[in-house]
Amino acid sequence: MSLDQKVKTDINKRGGLVVAIAQEAITKQVLMQAYMNEQAWEQTLATGYANYWSTSRNELWRKGATSGDWQKVKEIYLDCDNDAVLLLVEQQGKGACHTGSYSCFYTKVF
Amino acid sequence: MSLDQKVKTDINKRGGLVVAIAQEAITKQVLMQAYMNEQAWEQTLATGYANYWSTSRNELWRKGATSGDWQKVKEIYLDCDNDAVLLLVEQQGKGACHTGSYSCFYTKVF
Repeated sequence: MSLDQKVKTDINKRGGLVVAIAQEAITKQVLMQAYMNEQAWEQTLATGYANYWSTSRNELWRKGATSGDWQKVKEIYLDCDNDAVLLLVEQQGKGACHTGSYSCFYTKVF
Repeated sequence: MSLDQKVKTDINKRGGLVVAIAQEAITKQVLMQAYMNEQAWEQTLATGYANYWSTSRNELWRKGATSGDWQKVKEIYLDCDNDAVLLLVEQQGKGACHTGSYSCFYTKVF
């Protein structure tokens, strides 16, 4: 089984979704956390740009399609228990966050 | 409402769990992804070390208690939609992963 197939199998074992974490490839800043289903995974691999599954809108989320804030994917890593992927991306546009922030993790709580 | 209270409120709005991402504070390597419930959040703040909620064992997971691989928490950030926290930690022991790897994200799939 190819690694691509393995990830798809893992996604479907895990109720159809895996956690996806986007990290800027150069600065290593963590940008955002979202989810991927099989379609988002396939579209990410096919296009080379991050696609997520929007759990609020219940639809494929072509990150950047409306905002221009595309994430060009450089590398993807699967975690040890196969329920999360880490995307190393080149963040394009103004940043990852819909609020206009560069990263979604901008509220310091500790 | 304090930020601590806000996070607890957010946790309980989100079905009792938030996604937790641990990142090494100095090297910025992403180490692992787990979950926190209110108890794990409180224990993390009270002890200064990462505590998670094990969704497989359904119990509080005092990270490092059996392995010695403690994560000393330096900073915590909440994301824009209040369902994920990013922990910047000083990883102690041999690493974050139960497999013996330093990071759980060691399988390159793209």
